Amino acid sequence: MINGIITPMVTPLLSDNLSLDLIGTKKLIEHIISGGVHGLFILGTTGEATNLSYKTRIELIIESCKIVNNRIPVFVGITDTSIEESIKLASISKEAGATAVVAAPPYYYRLGQIELYKYYWNLADQVSLPLYLYNMPSHTKTNIDIDTTLKLSEHPNIIGLKDSSANTVYFQKLCHLFKNKDFCLLVGPEEVTSETVLMGGNGGVNGGSNMFPKLYVELYKATNAKDFKRIDELQHLVMEISTKIYSLGSFGSSYLKGMKGGLAALGIIETNIAPPFHSFEEKEMKLVRENIEKIKVELDKILK
Amino acid sequence: MINGIITPMVTPLLSDNLSLDLIGTKKLIEHIISGGVHGLFILGTTGEATNLSYKTRIELIIESCKIVNNRIPVFVGITDTSIEESIKLASISKEAGATAVVAAPPYYYRLGQIELYKYYWNLADQVSLPLYLYNMPSHTKTNIDIDTTLKLSEHPNIIGLKDSSANTVYFQKLCHLFKNKDFCLLVGPEEVTSETVLMGGNGGVNGGSNMFPKLYVELYKATNAKDFKRIDELQHLVMEISTKIYSLGSFGSSYLKGMKGGLAALGIIETNIAPPFHSFEEKEMKLVRENIEKIKVELDKILK
Amino acid sequence: MINGIITPMVTPLLSDNLSLDLIGTKKLIEHIISGGVHGLFILGTTGEATNLSYKTRIELIIESCKIVNNRIPVFVGITDTSIEESIKLASISKEAGATAVVAAPPYYYRLGQIELYKYYWNLADQVSLPLYLYNMPSHTKTNIDIDTTLKLSEHPNIIGLKDSSANTVYFQKLCHLFKNKDFCLLVGPEEVTSETVLMGGNGGVNGGSNMFPKLYVELYKATNAKDFKRIDELQHLVMEISTKIYSLGSFGSSYLKGMKGGLAALGIIETNIAPPFHSFEEKEMKLVRENIEKIKVELDKILK
Amino acid sequence: MINGIITPMVTPLLSDNLSLDLIGTKKLIEHIISGGVHGLFILGTTGEATNLSYKTRIELIIESCKIVNNRIPVFVGITDTSIEESIKLASISKEAGATAVVAAPPYYYRLGQIELYKYYWNLADQVSLPLYLYNMPSHTKTNIDIDTTLKLSEHPNIIGLKDSSANTVYFQKLCHLFKNKDFCLLVGPEEVTSETVLMGGNGGVNGGSNMFPKLYVELYKATNAKDFKRIDELQHLVMEISTKIYSLGSFGSSYLKGMKGGLAALGIIETNIAPPFHSFEEKEMKLVRENIEKIKVELDKILK
Repeated sequence: MINGIITPMVTPLLSDNLSLDLIGTKKLIEHIISGGVHGLFILGTTGEATNLSYKTRIELIIESCKIVNNRIPVFVGITDTSIEESIKLASISKEAGATAVVAAPPYYYRLGQIELYKYYWNLADQVSLPLYLYNMPSHTKTNIDIDTTLKLSEHPNIIGLKDSSANTVYFQKLCHLFKNKDFCLLVGPEEVTSETVLMGGNGGVNGGSNMFPKLYVELYKATNAKDFKRIDELQHLVMEISTKIYSLGSFGSSYLKGMKGGLAALGIIETNIAPPFHSFEEKEMKLVRENIEKIKVELDKILK
Repeated sequence: MINGIITPMVTPLLSDNLSLDLIGTKKLIEHIISGGVHGLFILGTTGEATNLSYKTRIELIIESCKIVNNRIPVFVGITDTSIEESIKLASISKEAGATAVVAAPPYYYRLGQIELYKYYWNLADQVSLPLYLYNMPSHTKTNIDIDTTLKLSEHPNIIGLKDSSANTVYFQKLCHLFKNKDFCLLVGPEEVTSETVLMGGNGGVNGGSNMFPKLYVELYKATNAKDFKRIDELQHLVMEISTKIYSLGSFGSSYLKGMKGGLAALGIIETNIAPPFHSFEEKEMKLVRENIEKIKVELDKILK
Repeated sequence: MINGIITPMVTPLLSDNLSLDLIGTKKLIEHIISGGVHGLFILGTTGEATNLSYKTRIELIIESCKIVNNRIPVFVGITDTSIEESIKLASISKEAGATAVVAAPPYYYRLGQIELYKYYWNLADQVSLPLYLYNMPSHTKTNIDIDTTLKLSEHPNIIGLKDSSANTVYFQKLCHLFKNKDFCLLVGPEEVTSETVLMGGNGGVNGGSNMFPKLYVELYKATNAKDFKRIDELQHLVMEISTKIYSLGSFGSSYLKGMKGGLAALGIIETNIAPPFHSFEEKEMKLVRENIEKIKVELDKILK
Repeated sequence: MINGIITPMVTPLLSDNLSLDLIGTKKLIEHIISGGVHGLFILGTTGEATNLSYKTRIELIIESCKIVNNRIPVFVGITDTSIEESIKLASISKEAGATAVVAAPPYYYRLGQIELYKYYWNLADQVSLPLYLYNMPSHTKTNIDIDTTLKLSEHPNIIGLKDSSANTVYFQKLCHLFKNKDFCLLVGPEEVTSETVLMGGNGGVNGGSNMFPKLYVELYKATNAKDFKRIDELQHLVMEISTKIYSLGSFGSSYLKGMKGGLAALGIIETNIAPPFHSFEEKEMKLVRENIEKIKVELDKILK
């Protein structure tokens, strides 16, 4: 069972906004690993998985596993509307040396809970890597209900759930029902990782750790140590990132654009982003650079 | 510009629920064409497109175009979350001899209208077949707003819109704003095809015409002829299908399961359906067979 | 059973935006009746019912019935979250001489269909005027499902349903299931009144008939006469009102603000509107006046 | 500024399911106060406020203030769709000796944020007691966005916000932006009170404290003391209540029915509940009684 901070890696792209930027990928992975995170998650929502071609997705799986080279666990998103494509991605992941796969519900048709249950059981039967459920109702329309999760946890190959619903009542219920059981519960939004770990969660899949991996790792450690003075100063920066980098502009895509903008401001990758999204214009990028600089200065002070 | 009834073809599958049933496909296409429909639309929502592997989708495109052999126009759904995959499907469609392509908005992330506009414009630039917009907000989460449609209609390659929102206020507004303009407006739900054609729509993409193509074609003709006695008796059967075949069971998938169940009852294809869905159990199939039989008898009486 | 056009009357308010404008109410009712509508519906969504104090609601019931003086049927909205308050309003309506009452589902908590069924049955038992169901899921969150409507129609006191869902597939199903039964089916949005009446609906509750009652009455007559040349020119104006008066500004309230703005432009009432809404600013009012003037000129041409 | 546990009191009703049970109210208030809670909130969502007649609401305000007799602060829900009725309830609350009033957005029409802002500012101008905002988007459809809250906090009469969205990312953002400012942030769902207080929240408005006030007060104290062993055993019982009392049956109303069922099992009030809801049947009540008994035994062990 994994505990700690897992980075849902953004996918570095070349200026055609479609092809994998291999140099950027190497740079980014080294940056992330150097921050001490406990795992890498590629092809998630932050990784723009569904917006990439299969060619690019497969390339990313193979190259990432090669670069990581077993230094930390690698989780691969295989979320798809076609179960065959998911199984294919899982098989490629296994061959490439990945640790586990992660799947959100199929996201075109709205599913009933029984349909969802049968789907996941079927999928778990057909992938040979361990499988994490991924709850993301704002994007998939279908929530993985508590009862469904309980029943699915009985499959030997289903070993945990990542919840990105932002609804911590739901997450608390899962923590309660899986107490002392061998089922990994990770939370998506970085804003609530500390509070959910305090109450029994296993860790967070935190987008911000693409930019500042140490910040999230230190916050996780402080949380485990119940060092509230430290939690307070680190959580402050997590919230600065949340409110000053992810919320520029008026679309839901501002999170992704802010993240890639922030990484560009840090000189790690370019801002290129796959359709249907577009990079921030210079107006927003100016703000991103200013805010990233301030956050970096504050973080350096805290971490030294 | 196309006018009339287009069949959003179901995809006949073998008993693995994954592979194309080529014999069934031939049988189904001949059945549909013999009913006099004005076009065939493959790989739409009724065609379970997103649930099929790319291999199966490509096979279906090539085989369908071959079978149809230019007897009627063929429209191909290229809806995808990855623009590269959509473009690839469009290019295969062109080579196979299809007439036009149809794309719903990318359906994982929720898009702003400006993002949607840029996405479609970009897509239309890159496909060489004419493109129809496909409004399906219940599945894609993003509505193609009226203003966005107006702006997109200025692209020379965007020639129409299929609306499956079931919101005929929206459709009436489109009919009003595109009056006397060369932009094709088709409606999805068969229950409202007659009424929207009466008010200026160009036709319907009607799932039920997989089973009973003549019924929908005759209703379309009666509607154009303003023959309300005829409209009344034909619409009655359309509504019998809607309420007695598509609404069994308690999930949204009952429409698809009912359709494939109905086609099996008619002896045209098997009930096999791709994950995450499952065919009706015998309990529901018994009802489907009984209701299909009654509808068939009534229809034969009317059509003779 | 009522057939035809019913005006969901706006509530004329004094400049405190709270108190009933009695002079405006008289003027408006005479204007509406002179247009030949088949019924008046006060305290609906267009009437801002829920935003008015009970004192104002009660005053409006009593005064409207007095002014109408049995010249046309009066329907009173008794929608409330408290069943006691609904019953009280129904009893006042009866005493005032109203014809029937209309109730949407209670709209704070989201209800299950069984809860909804029991609620309406209970309400129908306790009001002595005939009761119309009012489906308005965008506002109440709870849809009155087809099966629930079927079961409720068995109550002797429940005599019809007004559907404002804009989903005409739902409405077509109701028309089909209630064919040849004594249950009145009215549609809300004026954009689809003609098409639903063509397919078997009983009429429309059309907001625009506050401004131009004759337009909607004539369209209803043309629809019954299947005079499609006439339908076409009248529907054109209905759509001009829909797209040029109701859609200014960016909030859902633009419908209400446009309606009151239009009535002010016609010199019938003031634009005053109850909190939480605010009248259009001069910028929008300029557009409203210009558009109303053009529509009026066109309508006069058609009607003379 | 209030810190701690506030009880959103259920409204004890007589067997007509409409009238205030005055004896039950006294018993319940004494039970709650004896548990040491820091405030009482009447006429909230748990109090079925919108389902009660104004007569009953007013009686409850006056009687509750009298019974409490200044021993703890009393907050009164004045949420309404009519601003006049809200102001009236606020004025009665002031006269009765209440401490503050609480208002969720008007909940029939969906509001834009500017409309919401103006509405609250207007309301705050017209009530003489301090006003708490109440975010409850699942019921009101309108979220009180972060920016709107920031602007509203500048009104001298708006002193805090209760968030019942269950979205603790939203709540964390508020905590971050209001850090070191005199603005009270309370959370609704009891499942997340401990975790949000750990991160800077001021307390919780916890329905379960109707039944077991000491449990929530002790959890709040343990949370402030950072006593995680104690937090763990108390939170366990909070989650037992959440999963075994509030989740029986299949409707959203199971929370309310479970709460009143639990209080009946404890012998404090009857299960009577206002329309459109109905008390649990004996089948569910048996489970409620069994579960309440087990929870009570465990709680007594912990608290002694």
